[in-house]
Amino acid sequence: MKIVITGGAGFLGQKLARRLLQLDGIAARDDGVRRPIDEVVLVDRVAAPDLGVARVRSVAADITDAQVMGGLIGPDVDLVFHLAAIVSGAAEADFDLGMAINLDASRRLLDLCRAAGHRPRVVFTSSVAVYGGALPPVVTDETRLDPRSSYGVQKAIGELLLGDYTRKGFVDGRILRLPTISVRPGAPNKAASSFASGLIREPLGGQPTVCPVSTDLRLWLLSPRGAIDGIVAGAQLPSSALGDQRALNLPGLSVSVAEMIAALERAGGRAAVDLIRFERDPAVEAIVGGWPAAWDISRAQALGLKGDPDFDAIVRAYVEDELN
Amino acid sequence: MKIVITGGAGFLGQKLARRLLQLDGIAARDDGVRRPIDEVVLVDRVAAPDLGVARVRSVAADITDAQVMGGLIGPDVDLVFHLAAIVSGAAEADFDLGMAINLDASRRLLDLCRAAGHRPRVVFTSSVAVYGGALPPVVTDETRLDPRSSYGVQKAIGELLLGDYTRKGFVDGRILRLPTISVRPGAPNKAASSFASGLIREPLGGQPTVCPVSTDLRLWLLSPRGAIDGIVAGAQLPSSALGDQRALNLPGLSVSVAEMIAALERAGGRAAVDLIRFERDPAVEAIVGGWPAAWDISRAQALGLKGDPDFDAIVRAYVEDELN
Repeated sequence: MKIVITGGAGFLGQKLARRLLQLDGIAARDDGVRRPIDEVVLVDRVAAPDLGVARVRSVAADITDAQVMGGLIGPDVDLVFHLAAIVSGAAEADFDLGMAINLDASRRLLDLCRAAGHRPRVVFTSSVAVYGGALPPVVTDETRLDPRSSYGVQKAIGELLLGDYTRKGFVDGRILRLPTISVRPGAPNKAASSFASGLIREPLGGQPTVCPVSTDLRLWLLSPRGAIDGIVAGAQLPSSALGDQRALNLPGLSVSVAEMIAALERAGGRAAVDLIRFERDPAVEAIVGGWPAAWDISRAQALGLKGDPDFDAIVRAYVEDELN
Repeated sequence: MKIVITGGAGFLGQKLARRLLQLDGIAARDDGVRRPIDEVVLVDRVAAPDLGVARVRSVAADITDAQVMGGLIGPDVDLVFHLAAIVSGAAEADFDLGMAINLDASRRLLDLCRAAGHRPRVVFTSSVAVYGGALPPVVTDETRLDPRSSYGVQKAIGELLLGDYTRKGFVDGRILRLPTISVRPGAPNKAASSFASGLIREPLGGQPTVCPVSTDLRLWLLSPRGAIDGIVAGAQLPSSALGDQRALNLPGLSVSVAEMIAALERAGGRAAVDLIRFERDPAVEAIVGGWPAAWDISRAQALGLKGDPDFDAIVRAYVEDELN
């Protein structure tokens, strides 16, 4: 098995690569047979840190580079994890960059997979940003796509394309809509939801942070561990389990900002909470305020996918994985 | 006012141009003021027939031709009707052609409008093919897009792009989802729904025709006159009337194939009906069978848009407009 991960130097890409290397094989073809992983190619704008494993190859390239990507995606590739994206806040600030990466590069990737001719499996990570407007009380996999940000529009278009390329038999696509990932390690990013990690990460690291939204706001959250679990499981679902509906909302937790702060206090004490400054940012609220917070995840659960038990467990996992 | 119509040599494009030339002006800017139409540019692969009017310019060009299109769309253009498309059956048969016209050329057109810098008004005709899968009993403007054909996917992507370009202030977009147009004059085309016109047109012209679907199938129909009414009205709606929801389902009629044939008999007698051969075509049924037939058109009606009173009126309009 040869696997390509776009966005492979990003934090999810690296965690995914590490997880894949721990597996004794992966079932990424229609026959459902678990086969050993021979090579994992990480492609990203910057080279991924050396994982010290011969089976891993790191390619520093822009995924808009047709020549490089053409050299990576061929008949020998069994599975592509397409994680690379310009995040929500950045895609809103730089429309053309968002279109180039989130739409054009995604489409070119699909065309390369199609040209490979063997219907490779493609796992595309999408986002709750495909939803918006007047939402039903509970969001399901069937809720209409009505994105209200350029990022959400670009992700929705990627979903539509992957669905059609799958229907046409060009690829075996599956779309995994990630809840907001919390707690991300590292530095804040330009995602409008960056604060959903910063609220925990910065205070636990002794750093001040800003809460740009109302504490009543409910977020739909998944830990990095849970995200990797979902991505690896989603990649191995039989195609028939998804049928015509290739998109799956990964099971998240609906958590209010106030509940997140209470969990922070349990983990880090009052001193941690005191590092939060409350200063609402209309630009952030306009984007994340339109994302749904209540979900029916029965389809994902029926397919065997699991999320986190509660937000305290998410904080504990962050401390274990990133701080210890 | 300068107006550009893509697909201007097509039957709807020509009818639209003729109708526009009959108007004493059009309200195509935010101020709602009706202004005289100085020029109508018809762009299409083939030159439109000469309408004998100095205000009309016909440009024979492929809308994928960036240079020609760049010369046509500039700061002097107030209103663009983007009607050009590869129809459903053809887009299914030639995936790349459908993508090139329905997606890439549409996007380039939007980018040219954006580059013009004055937020021109863009009317994009879409299709019931954006729907599919398990539909609610009644379809509304809020029903989720779930296309099951490449044409429907490409139209849905066009809708998403036009929505985002509007939200960003690049254009003032409005999406008019056309019911199946019946009765189209002229020859059969490659739309999967071509039979919805052929069933009436061919027998009334003394020609045999094929009914490729069950007579129980319900179609959602609008006459060419009704379509032009809707397109002209949609172009003049104030932007605020559409708000965040730029797409509007034009009011059609839900008519079964059996009811269409009964109306044919009333207009053309038993001899006309005898010209129909019943031979179901699974490829056609797979596409049109997934389109919804029951609709809530209250939003369109509240905005002042009207459809046809009944299918007999549609047949009469065809006889008046095309046969007399």
